[in-house]
This record gives sequence, structure tokens and C-alpha cells, in this order.
Amino acid sequence: MAKRYVFNFGGKKAQGSAKLKNLLGGKGANLAEMTNIGIPVPPGFTISSELCIDYLKKGKLPKSLISEVKKSIKRVEKLSGKGFGDEQNPLLFSVRSGARISMPGMMDTILNLGLNDRTVRGFLKKTGDKRFVYDCYRRFIQMYSDIVLAIPRSKFEALIEDKKKQRDIKYDIELTGDDWEDIVEKFKELVLKETKKEFPEDPEEQLWGAIGSVFKSWNNPRAIEYRRIYNIPDIWGTAVNIQMMVFGNMGDDSGTGVVFTRNPATGENKIYGEFLQNAQGEDVVAGIRTPKKISELSRVIPAAYKKLVQILKKLEKHYRDLQDVEFTIEQGKLWILQTRAGKRTALASIKIAVDMAQQKMITRKEAVLRVTPEQLDQVLHPMIDPTQKYKTLATGLPASPGAAVGKVVFDPDEAVEQAKNGVSVILVRLETSADDVHGMEAAKGFLTARGGMTSHAAVVARGMGKPCIVGCEEISVDTERKEFTAHGITIKQGDTITIDGTEGKVIQGEAKLIKPEMGKEVTTLLKWADGFRRLGVRTNADRPKDAQVARDYGAEGIGLCRTEHMFFKPERVSAMREMIVAQDEAGRRKALEKLLPMQKQDFIGIFKVMDGYPVIIRTLDPPLHEFLPKDDDSIRSLSQEMNIPFEKLKQIVISLHEANPMLGHRGCRLGITYPEITEMQARAIFEAACECRKQGIKVIPEVMIPVVMEAKELKHQRDIVVRIAEETFKKYRVKLKYMVGTMIEIPRAALTADKVAQAADFFSYGTNDMTQTTLGFSRDDVAKFTPRYIELGILPADPFKTIDVDGVGKILEIGIKLGRKTKPNLEIGICGEHGGDPKSIHFCHKLGMDYVSCSPYRVPIARLSAAHAALLEKPRKKKKR
Amino acid sequence: MAKRYVFNFGGKKAQGSAKLKNLLGGKGANLAEMTNIGIPVPPGFTISSELCIDYLKKGKLPKSLISEVKKSIKRVEKLSGKGFGDEQNPLLFSVRSGARISMPGMMDTILNLGLNDRTVRGFLKKTGDKRFVYDCYRRFIQMYSDIVLAIPRSKFEALIEDKKKQRDIKYDIELTGDDWEDIVEKFKELVLKETKKEFPEDPEEQLWGAIGSVFKSWNNPRAIEYRRIYNIPDIWGTAVNIQMMVFGNMGDDSGTGVVFTRNPATGENKIYGEFLQNAQGEDVVAGIRTPKKISELSRVIPAAYKKLVQILKKLEKHYRDLQDVEFTIEQGKLWILQTRAGKRTALASIKIAVDMAQQKMITRKEAVLRVTPEQLDQVLHPMIDPTQKYKTLATGLPASPGAAVGKVVFDPDEAVEQAKNGVSVILVRLETSADDVHGMEAAKGFLTARGGMTSHAAVVARGMGKPCIVGCEEISVDTERKEFTAHGITIKQGDTITIDGTEGKVIQGEAKLIKPEMGKEVTTLLKWADGFRRLGVRTNADRPKDAQVARDYGAEGIGLCRTEHMFFKPERVSAMREMIVAQDEAGRRKALEKLLPMQKQDFIGIFKVMDGYPVIIRTLDPPLHEFLPKDDDSIRSLSQEMNIPFEKLKQIVISLHEANPMLGHRGCRLGITYPEITEMQARAIFEAACECRKQGIKVIPEVMIPVVMEAKELKHQRDIVVRIAEETFKKYRVKLKYMVGTMIEIPRAALTADKVAQAADFFSYGTNDMTQTTLGFSRDDVAKFTPRYIELGILPADPFKTIDVDGVGKILEIGIKLGRKTKPNLEIGICGEHGGDPKSIHFCHKLGMDYVSCSPYRVPIARLSAAHAALLEKPRKKKKR
Repeated sequence: MAKRYVFNFGGKKAQGSAKLKNLLGGKGANLAEMTNIGIPVPPGFTISSELCIDYLKKGKLPKSLISEVKKSIKRVEKLSGKGFGDEQNPLLFSVRSGARISMPGMMDTILNLGLNDRTVRGFLKKTGDKRFVYDCYRRFIQMYSDIVLAIPRSKFEALIEDKKKQRDIKYDIELTGDDWEDIVEKFKELVLKETKKEFPEDPEEQLWGAIGSVFKSWNNPRAIEYRRIYNIPDIWGTAVNIQMMVFGNMGDDSGTGVVFTRNPATGENKIYGEFLQNAQGEDVVAGIRTPKKISELSRVIPAAYKKLVQILKKLEKHYRDLQDVEFTIEQGKLWILQTRAGKRTALASIKIAVDMAQQKMITRKEAVLRVTPEQLDQVLHPMIDPTQKYKTLATGLPASPGAAVGKVVFDPDEAVEQAKNGVSVILVRLETSADDVHGMEAAKGFLTARGGMTSHAAVVARGMGKPCIVGCEEISVDTERKEFTAHGITIKQGDTITIDGTEGKVIQGEAKLIKPEMGKEVTTLLKWADGFRRLGVRTNADRPKDAQVARDYGAEGIGLCRTEHMFFKPERVSAMREMIVAQDEAGRRKALEKLLPMQKQDFIGIFKVMDGYPVIIRTLDPPLHEFLPKDDDSIRSLSQEMNIPFEKLKQIVISLHEANPMLGHRGCRLGITYPEITEMQARAIFEAACECRKQGIKVIPEVMIPVVMEAKELKHQRDIVVRIAEETFKKYRVKLKYMVGTMIEIPRAALTADKVAQAADFFSYGTNDMTQTTLGFSRDDVAKFTPRYIELGILPADPFKTIDVDGVGKILEIGIKLGRKTKPNLEIGICGEHGGDPKSIHFCHKLGMDYVSCSPYRVPIARLSAAHAALLEKPRKKKKR
Repeated sequence: MAKRYVFNFGGKKAQGSAKLKNLLGGKGANLAEMTNIGIPVPPGFTISSELCIDYLKKGKLPKSLISEVKKSIKRVEKLSGKGFGDEQNPLLFSVRSGARISMPGMMDTILNLGLNDRTVRGFLKKTGDKRFVYDCYRRFIQMYSDIVLAIPRSKFEALIEDKKKQRDIKYDIELTGDDWEDIVEKFKELVLKETKKEFPEDPEEQLWGAIGSVFKSWNNPRAIEYRRIYNIPDIWGTAVNIQMMVFGNMGDDSGTGVVFTRNPATGENKIYGEFLQNAQGEDVVAGIRTPKKISELSRVIPAAYKKLVQILKKLEKHYRDLQDVEFTIEQGKLWILQTRAGKRTALASIKIAVDMAQQKMITRKEAVLRVTPEQLDQVLHPMIDPTQKYKTLATGLPASPGAAVGKVVFDPDEAVEQAKNGVSVILVRLETSADDVHGMEAAKGFLTARGGMTSHAAVVARGMGKPCIVGCEEISVDTERKEFTAHGITIKQGDTITIDGTEGKVIQGEAKLIKPEMGKEVTTLLKWADGFRRLGVRTNADRPKDAQVARDYGAEGIGLCRTEHMFFKPERVSAMREMIVAQDEAGRRKALEKLLPMQKQDFIGIFKVMDGYPVIIRTLDPPLHEFLPKDDDSIRSLSQEMNIPFEKLKQIVISLHEANPMLGHRGCRLGITYPEITEMQARAIFEAACECRKQGIKVIPEVMIPVVMEAKELKHQRDIVVRIAEETFKKYRVKLKYMVGTMIEIPRAALTADKVAQAADFFSYGTNDMTQTTLGFSRDDVAKFTPRYIELGILPADPFKTIDVDGVGKILEIGIKLGRKTKPNLEIGICGEHGGDPKSIHFCHKLGMDYVSCSPYRVPIARLSAAHAALLEKPRKKKKR
């Protein structure tokens, strides 16, 4: 048996199903699936995506396809009672692309295929509406000529404009049937002129031309760009869906619309959408006319509305997710053209997932997996501070929530340019199209003067998770002069505006943005996530205030409390400087005595917030010269302040200068050459701990020694910490459990982790420094070449953002293996900035770490990512841990 | 059967042998061995070192030992015909320590044991020489009291001084028998006063006291210090040798001496040594009297001399090495007291090894193994430039060859202090003792006013391979005032002198030192070494001149030719600066065009020298800012020179500044951002290669890409090099074999070496940078803490000198394993400075590298070390390579 390339659907029976998505594309599979569950889908057939790449290579389709397609056409003719090319009752087709995953607007579509000078008359006889029929015909010729014959669309538009001038009218809608008939004639002349051939009259010829062009559109520049952005493999190809045309523009009992089973902006469980009465589908999607709310449909065509509501319920139940449904009502009869998982805002994504799980439509696992860390991030992203008052410049439709501040640009290329230079930009357009995607990718948010909630700009913005306002008719955009005006105020390119996509408000200048509270659904979802994850989530916080934020976000302890930040406070830095300038141990001890009570107070504050949770405190890390000024003027003024001769202080500054401070006298190297520093810090930690304990606070201190490269360093510092701890416990008559561990941030520490583990109660990976040393990348200096590296594909991403799995990841793995060889239950975590990066968290989970630690605002993202990592883990032999 | 702790020797039969060295110590084993081969050794017995540590722990000896020792005493009594404690014919013993390896002067010795108020009379009757007999007795009491009873030696010396004052004489030798008898009386009173006990009269009590004290002396501070310096395990312990006393001070037919079977300074095959007529052994070793040349003995006691020469031949033949022999002639009878492998100068070591192999006494393998890399290094070390004239300040005995320049210090502690601060010092002493070893360790060379060629200073200097002059009686040393005077010239502490240990000359001020030519024996030895080694030896050389030196020393190619050094030449740095300042590719290319012919000439020069050998050329490595000035004045003058506004140039300098240049924009990162640099360098290399080839030179170019951390970087650079190579071959109509490889100097490159190897024809480990990144050590900055680290034992050695096996070594191993997984025959070498370090070379051999590359002057050392590595390798399963 020959391979099947064509899959029929319609008449309550389909040859495909949702399972064949890879073959039929999302759209084709869904049409089949919908047919199978009894949804009224216009009949048709899908040509499998298998043929696409083959066709693009060879430039021809297999012969067997011709007879298959012919059979399928017959089937549709039978189901519809119409004939393809039949002059009395012509069957018209739409020909659409449909890839494995939706690439909205990226590839080509041809409607009304099958019309020619003869069938158009039959069509007219059937409908009796000349304006509509010739409008259909001219649309077909226009689309076909653009896509199949490659004649610029603008040449056709010019002919329409000529006609309008000639008739002295303003809008297309004012053109009559005769006008359109005349225009069709002109269109055909244009085709003949451009191609030296008549426009094809044979419907089958039309069909094959359309099929080939849709396949080819897989490789148009927009589609390639889109795939690059969304990492879609080029070899997938697209399927082609050939489906009977139905018409929403056949009078007032007709219409077309797009509807979501729930609100894709807020997640509210209420159908949400828009329709246009007496219109074709593209009018909605392209945002050319501003459509009506779906609820209006119940008033206009009540029977169809009732039926639609039933179908939407059925679809959502069947697909177990928010559905984005295209429908057409043709003279009262409801047809469903397409259904797919609806794009939604982050907020909606979370609410829908939680609601569906609570409605038992999906499991809690599914709910957790349906929310991406990026969506959660977005929900936790800035909004305009509601306590501040701003004058609204203009209001539009709130198409994608969140707020953004940026400089206005009007051109997508310009947006890309500016973003490259690190400028935040807001892209302002009359409306957007698929050609603008690269600029939208670069911008922080979008504002369009036209279009509805399902217009291109709105859909793309929600997908990208960027704030967006559409249909903002209060502004007039002058792309030429690069400015827009609203209520007499002109905003030029480069001026700063703020857009609030949640409220649909445009504000002149920079508004104050704040992070929002976590909503009820987020809290619920994260609680569920906590039940699935195996990784603990801690935070990097140096101050009680930050620690409190992290606790509120669900941090289960502090993974990194950097003590040096405390020393930079003005009142402390002078004691610190006194210590550095001291020429002997006695002098250093004297200065350290001053710092001790301050450090102790810091720790008391943090221990109080973290009552019952572990707190990892890292001993002094940066090189001492960071605490001293560098230029002569500052040195001079400090020398007066400290009452030290300028020359002497200058000499000290010079002697502390380092060629490569990253690899210099820092971390435990300081604690070993000046053990009194470690002593003071240990004393501050344990005195604070003992005092908190006496107040009934549960303190779990973990002292972390940084920049260790050799077990003996750790042993040296550990001995000091343990001695001070015991002394302090004796003094306070308190006994506390505590740990002494190390940061693993130097390759050698990981390579000798079996020995390091002998002196460590825990490891914490400092992946920032580990990335610097493993790659030989100074974080401060690599900006000169890393952008070029990413451009050339030498690096897949910024290794300081996402863990470099091949290099740094391998070192981490070696360290964990060796460390646990010595101590099978060694506590291992990560406190580099990668601890808040979803991809890196998955990797940490895979490595079997105990926790990740990240900045307070990343804690919810880490909780969710950790749950995803656990849920997506491939089941394998259980490891004893 | 109970374990044997006592091993008898003497009378041509011994219970031990050389094989029992670990048990009997070097001295005991040799005494047994010599006995067995018929050497006249005074009879005695050895108590095994097994008992030492046990005794030191428990403070008592096993009971079974008492009867064993009694039996052995009986045996010696029988062999000697004397009686231990016999009042008529007393047997006297020496009691000496003897560890597994020689620790000269570190532990205690007691002579003349067995004398008491009764036996002294029998001894006197036998010898009839009261002065000698009471001198023996007082020496015994003095030593015993010092060592066993812990009464300070000085108190006894004071009593002798009293007697001399009383008798108004100057030298000990002038004291009569009666004087000594009187002194003995006084000594005994002193003992009674100090210990509240009579000096022990019972010989057995004396013996047990001595045995215990010798064991204890294993743990005296000098011995502990010595073991620390020479890495001798504390648990070895020492054996105790109890041996019949023989006397060299029994008249003019008696004497004692130390003799080497060959000249330990030059290696000349002629016995070499000194003796003192009518003297005890310590007089020679301690350097108190300046002894006579051994050849004199043939005149003074000809029979004994003849016998001695025979015995020396026998000993050398038996031990197959240079022997250092102690002998005593007691009234015409020759006794051999000790033989051991003689310490020798580096020069002698090499000559002796080669001579012995040529005489078929040892194999060539043995000859190669007998010369240490340190000795070879020493031979290649500085000597005073013979073309220069210097006025000699003073002349002494040339005790250890080589020359050194340094500031004079008089105190060993001061020497250590100064050396810590990086000051080169020459230690000047009246004479040295075991207490001075730490200071000698720190000094570059030694000068003593007293002592002979076998004095403490001389022996230690040869062992340490440092220049040394002893017995320099032309100088008078005033330790108090910290100065010495010679011929009216006063040299104060801190003044610079030069010592020439080869000639025995002291020069005021700093003489010009030069490296010597390789002697005939060195050439022979290295030729043999080449036959054994598996590692290739290349050199790091950037100039034809250096390359020539390396070739003369036997380098088999260039492992690292750094191109950047070429750019620093004044006439080139301006073209280089022009390139850096250029704001676009065209500007850079213009400047690079100027550099091209210069680079080409460099390479032609090197290719010519290396005719037939591979040359690895590394592309540009350092960050660009290294080529620009830093301070405003230099920038200003450069801006005038370059005709560029100061502000612009300053801006460029600032923009190129890096926080951590080690981890910044350098190496292949430059070649990737500015591919035109790599292009120019590749063109210079291949044009040079083609031109040389046309002149009939065999060129083997290997292009090396530095600072690679990812395979794709290498691929990128490789593509450029290959393209330019092919273009150039076409242009010159020449086809050459060449390689493109990479430096592995970033941990990630080693961790991903399987992928890197896909684009590499060879790997060369840059262990300098690899040490910096793996340990997180900036070579320029770690001096602040590494000395402390080594002191605390955190690091065993400077990781930039000897490869850190645990960390860097592991990374190298991973890289080799992964690299060879991809390409089993991948050429792998090392070009960091470790390539010239013997320990590191052993490690490289063990890792299976193909070659090491080092500085030209280290090439011979690398050749020898590589041979050692191969010869010392434990045989195991043969690997296919």
C-alpha cells in the first residue's frame, strides 16, 4: 500500500486525529480531532507535512498525490452538495498552512479558491449578493496573485484606490457590486500584464498552485525569522489544509469571530472574544475593523451564540485547556474553523491552571507544569506603582498586562538597533504585522493605534510576555515624521513613555514601577509546586529587609549572606580601613574590635527573620583594596580623615593593587593570612546566634569559607571557627548546632572535593566565580567579545546567566561525585546567580543538589522551576540519597 | 624464636649485610657488609633501628636485649683479646647512631666508653702514654656528660681553660698527662655537683646510658630540622653501632683520615682525602686542625697507605660507587671505620657515573640514574666569566664548585630572614655546625675561615649543590661586629661578594657570572639519556638566537614560539599601536600589512635554525592594552608621535583597560573579534615556510591557537589558518605538511577536550595559565599569601614551579583522556614553565605526553629527567600508543 499523504475530515468522520499533530500540523490535527468529536467543521482534507521539505528540495510533488486529492475533492463535493468548478453551485476552498506548532501569520493562506469567471456567476445566483460575490472574487485574485504569482499586493491596492477616487468615495465598503466586478476585470488585466499569462481559470490548476505556494511559504523570511526566535526546527515543514469555504459576510445572520473559552488576559472563567457581523475572518485577525464583544452575539444571532457556548465547553473539556477558537456563521449556521490552545497572559495562565485543577479538569501536576517560569516571572514583574498619580496621555485596549518604560521608536529595525545599545524601547505602530516580529522581540512593550484584543500585536505580546496596548485610537501615529500625537501632545522618537498593558494606559515620561504582591492563584500554585519539588529553595540576602522579602516569597533559608556588603556602609568602612592600614596584628585586632558589635547586630537581624531556617554566612570575600580609594584626591582626603601621612596611605594602596584581583588575595586567603578577621566574624556570628537563642529564636548558622582551592585551607579556617564557636557557647552557656562548609568556586576545589569534603559540612557552588575560572572569563571584561561569540554560535547563551553545562556543569558534577564519595549526605547547594535561572535549576536538580539559592525576587521562579525539574524527570533507577 | 635486635660483626663474619640497611642503618649495614668482604673493621655489633621509635615512645628497652648485648660483648672480647671493664687490658667502645640514610653530625656519638678509674690504669699500662690515655678519658667523660647526663659542654671547656691559664699555656696539646689526670678529677667533681651522683664507673651502666641517649638523639632539634629539609620520615629511627675503639692518636705510626675513592670535587679517578697523624677522628671531621693530603700518608706510614689503596679499590668495586671512607691507623694497623657512598659535586657525579659506565663497573642506565637533574643543573649553572679580570680578595679551599653572588650575612637566622625577602645572601662563618643548616639552606653559598675539604660546611655545600669555600684562613671573621677582614679590606654585613667554589676565590663586589659549556661527560651522559627517554624535548624560544642555544643543548623542536614578544620591539610596536588605535577593519589591515614582512623575517630565522624540527608558533596572546602606555605622560608623547589627539588616545587606553586582564580579551578571543590579525600571522608563517622550503630547508610549522575554552573557537581560527595556508601554497606553488592545534590552558578546554580535539592536530598544555585558572591564582598577585601557604603546609611547593598534581594534574589527565578518546594519536605536549621542572616532567611522562618544552637552558635537565622518568617507571601492561 502506498503511503497516505492526504487525510480527509468532515461529516463527523476524519482520517486523522490530534495524535497525528506532527504529520498534519496543529491545525489539521485539530480539524480531524474536532470532526471526530462531533464539532461542525467545514469538510476538507489535509496534505501531510512530510511532503513539505521533500517538495522544497525537489520542487515537485509525488504523482500519487494527484489521485488522492481528486478523491478527497469528490468527498467534500458529496458532503457539501456543491461541485468544485461547478458553474451552478460552486464549491470554494480555503488553502492554509499548518505546522506542528502555531506560527500565527507567518505563512500564507488563500481563500475563495475555485472562483473563476464561470463559477462566480453560479455563486452569485446562489447568494444574490453581487457586492459580496465580486468582493470574494477580487480577494481571491489578489491573494492568489500575491502568493502564487508573486505580484506585489500594492499594485492591486492601487487599482482599488483608483476606483475609489474615480467614484469619489472614501471607504472600500462604499464600493458596489459593479465596482468590484470592474475591479476584477482590472485585476485580471494586471495579471496578464505582469505574468504574460491569463489568470488561471481552471480550479484544479488554482488548487495545485496554492498547495505549492503554501509549502513554499515555510521558507519565507518571516517564517525563518520566527523559527529562529522560537527555536523551531527547519525540518518540521508545514502541512496544507484544504477546506470548504464558509462565509461570514453573507448578510446580517452571518459573521465571523475569534473566541477564547476563558479570558486569556485575566484567566476569568467566562468566554471571551470578539466577532464581526457580516465579515470575513481576516477582518478580525488583521485588526482592520474594531470588532464587537462576543456577548453581543447573543443579541444579534442568539441561536448561533447558544450553540457556540455549548461547543466551547465541549472543546475545553476535550482538550483540557484554554481554547482559542475561530468560527464563522454562514447565514445562521455555525461552523468551527479552528481550535487551538489559547495564548494567554502569565496571569491568566496561572489562574486557568489553578482553576482547572480545582475543577478537576486537570491534575495539580499538570497545573504546575502548565505555568512556565517566564510567566511566573512576568506576573512578578513591574507594574505602575498604584500609590503614585500619573496623568494618562491616552487609553487603548489592555492587550497584554504588565508595565514598561522606554524610549519611543516607530520602526522595528530601529528598535533592534537601539536595544543592541542597551536602550529600553517601546515600539509604537499603527498596527503590527508578521514583518515586525524582530522589532517586537527587541522592544520592552508595544503600543498600536489600531487592532483589537486578538490583533497581531496583542497575540504576539502575550506570547512574548510583554506589556501591550492596542486599538489606542486616541493617538495618531506619523511614522514618516517619527512622532505620535494624543490630545495635542506630541511624542517624538526618543521621548520616554510608560505603557500599562494591564490597564491600557499610556503615560508620558517615566512612571515609577513596582513589583506586585503574589496573587491567590500564584500562592496556591506555588504551594502545589512545593509538594512536587525535591530541591530546596533558599535566598541570597545580606540584609534583614531582603531576607524578609525572600521569606514572604517562600525562601527556606539563606544560601548566601555576604558579610562584606555590611562593611561598605559609611560608618563601618572607616573601621575596616583602619584594619587594612594597620601594620600588625595588634592594630588589626583593635580595628576588628570596633566591627564586631556591628556585625553581630547584622546577624541578629537576619537570624530573627530566618527563625527556624538555616542561614549560610560567608566570611570576608573581596580583596582588601576594594575598601580603599584609588585616586590621589580620595587618598588625600582619607589620609587627613585617618590622620595618616598621604604618602604612607598611598603606599598601602599601591601595595594592595592587584593585576588580577579576581585571582588574588581574597576569600579564605585573607582569613589565612589574617586569621583575626575570621575570628572576629565567627565571634560575631556565634554571639549573635547565642543571643537570639536566648530570646527563643531558632538559629541554624552555617559558616561558609569562600575561595577554597585546597582542603587544608578549609581545615585551617574551620579550626578557627570551631574554636570560637566553642568559646562563645561556653561564654553564653548555650549549645547550638551549626555547620562549617565551603563555597566551591575554584576548579581545584571541585577536582579535589573528596578531600575538601573531609573538612566540610556542606558545599555551596559559587557558579559566578566558577564560570570565571573554568572559562577564563572575567565577568567585567568579557563584554568585548561575548556578544560576538553568541552571534557566531560559539556560545549558546551568556554563561553568567545560564550554567555552561559542558564546562562548568562538568566541574560541578565532578565536585558532587567526589564530595559525596567522602560524605554521602553532604549538603550541596548553589548560590551563584544561576540559582534563579530555570534552565540552570533543572541542571542542579539533575545533579542531585539539595537546594538552590537565588535573589529574593527569584524565589517563586526557583520554586516553580524546581517542581518542573522533578516532574519532568525521566523515571529511572531510584538512587539512595 | 625471639626477634633478633642485635647483629654482630667483626672477625671476617657478620650477621648483617648491606641488604639490612633499613634495620641496621647505613653505617651498621656497611660495617657488616665490609666485614663480610674481608675489610678490616673493628669488631662490634649493631642494635636495630626497630627498637628506636619503640624506645622513644615507651622510654624502655625490651628485656631480651640485655642478654643479647652481653653475648655480643663477649664475642668482641674474644675477637680482640680485651675485656670490657678489664682492669689490665680494657676493651673500649664507640657508640654511634646510624640511620637508614646518612645524617652527618645530626645525632650523637660517644667514644672511649668503658674507661673508668680502674680501666684507665690498665689502658695506661698497655700504651704507656699518660697524656693520650687521660686525654681519652677526659674526652669520654666530656662526651658522656654532655650527651647522657645533659651537662653543658662549655662547663667542661671552662675547666680546661682554667687549667691552661693556671699553667700559662695556649693550646690543649701543651697540657701534660698529669694535667689531664687532674682535669679528669675536676670533671668528675663537676658531674657530682651537677647530677648529685658520681660519674658512672660501671662500664655496662655506661653502655646502657649511651645506647638510650643515641636513640634519643633521633629526636634532637637538629635531627628533626634535618629530616624536615631532606624529607626523611620520622618513623624510620636510628640504629646504634657499638664498636671496638681503635686509636689514631697512639703515636706517629698512628693516624686517622677520610678518603674518597675518587676526587669528589672533579670526579677524577684518583684517591682523594686527608689525614691527621696522631689524632682522633673528630679532629678531621670537625675541621679543627687542617689536615694533610692523603698522598702524604705514603711517605709517613707507607705500609698502611699501600693497604689502604688496595682496600679502597675493593670497596669501590664492591659498592659500585664512589666511596667515602673513614680509617684509623693504630700503631701501624689499618682499620676501616666506615664506608659510604661519597657526596660529590655535580661535576664529579657526572664524570664518575660516565667513567664507571665506560669502565663497565655500572650500566649506562645506572649512570644516567645516578646523576640528578639538580646536579646537571648545577653544572650548567653560573661560573665567573673567565674573560673578565677580578682582584681576588682572599683564597680558601674550593670545597663545592660553582659561583654565587650575594650580600654577606654572618648569622644563619639572618640568612633565613633576608632570603625570605628575596635577598641573595652568602653565609660567612668561622666554621659551620649542624646548628647552621637552616641558614645554609637559605644562602646561595658559604665561606668559612676554618675547616678542610671534608668539614661540615664542605660536605653540606656539596650535598646542597651550592658553591662553598672553606679553610679561608686569609680572612678574619668578627661575628660580633658582623664583618670580616682580609688583607686590610673590611667587608660588612650587607656588602656584596662573589665566591667561586670551583677555584676557592673570594671576590669583593659582584662578578659577572656566565653559564658554562657542556663538558664531554655531560654530552655523553645526555646521549645515553636520550636513548632511554620516551618524552620528546622541545624548547620555548622566540628568537633565532635562543632557538640556536636550545638546539646546541639538544632541543628537538620548538614547543612554543610566542609571537607577541616580536611585537614589543620598538620599530614594531608603533605598527602594532597603529593597529590597535584603528577604529575599523580597514585601518587594522593597513597596520597589519606593515607587520607582516617583519613577522615573516622572524619566522624565517627560526625555521632556519630548526631545520628538520617542528616549530609551534602561537598566535597573538596578550590583551591589546599591553602594547599601549598607561600613564598620561606616555600617552601624551605617543599621541604626538602618532598624530592622534591625546583625548582620543586616552579614551582608547581607558576602553581597553581590564579588571582582570588574565581572564579578558586575549588569546583566540582577539583572533575571533579581529580575524585579520590571525590572517596576517598565518600569512607570515606560511610565506616564511614556503620561502625556507624553496631554500631547501625542511620546515614543519605547527600553528597554535591560545586561550581556547571551546571547540568552536578553535574551529573558527583553524578555518582562517587553513584558508591562508592553502592560498599561500598556491601562490608559492609549494605544498607543506603543517598542523593546527591549540594550547590547553583554560579548564573548560580540558573538560571538553573530546570536542576540542576534533579541530586540533595537537594539544599543548599551557600549565602557567592552567595553574592560574585551576587554582584561582594570579601569578602576579599570589606572593602575598603563597609563602605563608607553604609555611603552613597548605601547599607543598610553588605551584608555578612544580605542577600541582592534585588539581592541575587532574585537569591535564582529564584533557588527555578525552582528547585521545577522539584522536588516539593526538600529539600532546606541555609548554608551561613546568616543562623544565624534573618532578613535573616525571608527571608528564606518567600522563603519556609526547614531549615537554622548556627554556633553552633547561633542555639538558629535561632530557635527563625524561630518561629518569622512563627508567624509573614501574613495568606494567604495555599500552598501545
